[in-house]
Amino acid sequence: MKKLLLFFTALSLCAGAYAQQALGISTNITSPQVNPDGSVTFRLRAPKAVKVTVTGDFLPSIPEGATDATTTVDMVEKENGVWEYTTVPLPGELYSYAFNVDGVRMLDPSNIFQNRDISTYTSIVIVSRNDSDPGHYYKVGKVAHGNVSKVWYNSPALGITRRMTVYTPAGYEDLGNKTKYPVLYVLHGAGGDENAWSELGRAAYIMDNLIAEGKAKPCIMVMTNGNPGQEAAPGEWANEQVDPMNRGGGRASFPESFPDVMKYVESHYRVLKGAANTAICGLSMGGGHTFQISNLNPGKFGYIGVFSAALSVPSVNPQPAAPRQQGAPAGGNRRARPNVYDGLNNNPEYAARIKAVFNAKPKLYYIAIGKTDFLYDSSAQYRQWLDANNFKYEYKETPGGHIWRNWRLYLTDFGQKVFK
Amino acid sequence: MKKLLLFFTALSLCAGAYAQQALGISTNITSPQVNPDGSVTFRLRAPKAVKVTVTGDFLPSIPEGATDATTTVDMVEKENGVWEYTTVPLPGELYSYAFNVDGVRMLDPSNIFQNRDISTYTSIVIVSRNDSDPGHYYKVGKVAHGNVSKVWYNSPALGITRRMTVYTPAGYEDLGNKTKYPVLYVLHGAGGDENAWSELGRAAYIMDNLIAEGKAKPCIMVMTNGNPGQEAAPGEWANEQVDPMNRGGGRASFPESFPDVMKYVESHYRVLKGAANTAICGLSMGGGHTFQISNLNPGKFGYIGVFSAALSVPSVNPQPAAPRQQGAPAGGNRRARPNVYDGLNNNPEYAARIKAVFNAKPKLYYIAIGKTDFLYDSSAQYRQWLDANNFKYEYKETPGGHIWRNWRLYLTDFGQKVFK
Repeated sequence: MKKLLLFFTALSLCAGAYAQQALGISTNITSPQVNPDGSVTFRLRAPKAVKVTVTGDFLPSIPEGATDATTTVDMVEKENGVWEYTTVPLPGELYSYAFNVDGVRMLDPSNIFQNRDISTYTSIVIVSRNDSDPGHYYKVGKVAHGNVSKVWYNSPALGITRRMTVYTPAGYEDLGNKTKYPVLYVLHGAGGDENAWSELGRAAYIMDNLIAEGKAKPCIMVMTNGNPGQEAAPGEWANEQVDPMNRGGGRASFPESFPDVMKYVESHYRVLKGAANTAICGLSMGGGHTFQISNLNPGKFGYIGVFSAALSVPSVNPQPAAPRQQGAPAGGNRRARPNVYDGLNNNPEYAARIKAVFNAKPKLYYIAIGKTDFLYDSSAQYRQWLDANNFKYEYKETPGGHIWRNWRLYLTDFGQKVFK
Repeated sequence: MKKLLLFFTALSLCAGAYAQQALGISTNITSPQVNPDGSVTFRLRAPKAVKVTVTGDFLPSIPEGATDATTTVDMVEKENGVWEYTTVPLPGELYSYAFNVDGVRMLDPSNIFQNRDISTYTSIVIVSRNDSDPGHYYKVGKVAHGNVSKVWYNSPALGITRRMTVYTPAGYEDLGNKTKYPVLYVLHGAGGDENAWSELGRAAYIMDNLIAEGKAKPCIMVMTNGNPGQEAAPGEWANEQVDPMNRGGGRASFPESFPDVMKYVESHYRVLKGAANTAICGLSMGGGHTFQISNLNPGKFGYIGVFSAALSVPSVNPQPAAPRQQGAPAGGNRRARPNVYDGLNNNPEYAARIKAVFNAKPKLYYIAIGKTDFLYDSSAQYRQWLDANNFKYEYKETPGGHIWRNWRLYLTDFGQKVFK
């Protein structure tokens, strides 16, 4: 066996030397290195560089209203042109980072783990300091794993076939298993697609770990593509236009087309039906979609999770939007967004839909948002309206803003509350 | 709808400004740009850089015996610190490339398409100049797509559960479809895993396109992990050690464990059984595995594809390997590899297995290799033995070496020949 290993190692080295497509060089350095105290050391070889920095969400949060999108720290040149930076001990979490070499952003060439968010890749590293911190749930556990499939379904409402990601829990495919499972629909935000929750969101790993620890019920998780003009994520359909922000125009809105998703899932998987076995949640645009889909289908979902949601109520008398202040970040002017409380009071027809949702007595209506999220006020206004109408919901408020760190936390939390 | 788009664009810009995880900046330049004549323009913004180069397999091949692993060309600084290089018109192909800024390798930040090969990412671009060139088959076609699943199966022979990639052709999941399909097993090389063929190999797109054009029969394609100590690709199992070259040691070899794969596939999918409906192919180490698996199971596979194979015949009287010349690339000394022709003549017991394979009259025994592949001689020696024994095979020889470009070509070719 040793001989064989040696042979294949030699073969691979040789392949590397000849192969035109193995363009990279081995970096021969370790980065990132998670240290026993939870600190992380980043390293990059750049002998000719004048200035190397690292930026990442392990750095202190950006104060509300600050204009700097990110903060950076200088790395220090050590031996052989290797630049280095070690963080303070970090809480268990999944962290994203990137280097900047003399003004040019780049990923960590020593780290094969990375994530795409909209059109930007970042290197990632998971820190876990104990068995209950978030990092623990985002890691691949030493547990049984569910299968993850990229599945095409027909959407007559949108006039196209479309791709979604379906997680089936470990054991689902076991021969002779006739068990039916509840379904959790999980929706992404603007710029995302059917890969967002499974990759950035670590959804399959979270669910594997929660199920293995008995904290979540085994369920089927369906991660859709919420852009009505898109068949699939960039690079997964024939459209050459790869701008992930181009949502395209469908015949219908995605929420209007949602019965097509459910019809496919309920006819192709062993699904427990009924509100007690059907949950939906989503982040940002997907939180807005969750709001709209549940409002369009009162009584259909027993568990509704509205994360950092872009909430909008159709205006009965459309008003021109308030002019945005010169120099203010786009969308960052909270006053420019229509007030959800007022909107619902002014649109009794739409408000009646929400009343129907609550009158159907969902087992859980869950609202979560970060304290510094730019959509905070909309969520607060919606809660104000729910309170005024005496509708019960569960509310989770976390530090930070409109970030994946929060959405992974919310899924980990919400996933433990559904189907119970 | 326009208003909604504007809203979500604004939301996204804002999210970018606040989100700690959207670390990147929009590059606002187009790269790569495939021009109408088939040339490609690469661009990178690096205002402070002194020297920027691009390397990629669009450049001339490396002469046999050259010590330079890759060639590079200088990019030229244009306006606003944007560096640029335009290739000559290129044949239709999938090309890999990377930039180098003052000695630091980086990917193209304007291009969201990239591939991982062993531990190295490269940016990719597909050129297609007509509907029959290789690039045409590697693109996502405007055709019906098969589903692609990451599936865990139990391997008693290896003592672990393991992950594989399963492609089911478009229509497989249609309600009421009771059709059974033939199965093509597709094996990766050293340093690869169950993601290699579906990502680097473009296997699902190739099969989608071939099936849609009536050039391949709809089939199930099973892409295994051939490293017996690995449960799955790096980052998809709990092992913290991410070295993709670490194949680990299993209880058995992967070829010995292959019946576990087939047992799972044949019990979980609608599979046509028998040699006429069972094909296997693989590249490099996977070509060696294909050779070994077919030899272990004569009569089981009607179609056998041995691509750029690492062939080895167990030695009856093990000899110490010839010492490697100082400074020679590891494994690059052709004389150091045992002669396959001699090996088979000296090991009648192993040769009898191959004879049993051919005596079972496979419909196709297909051998393919690049003219400058470092494994060329082994393949030639094997063909010499097959010729001496009057065994019929189909042989394809292409330019170039031990590269994915060849393996995609071979799968495109082999895929049109199986199950017919």
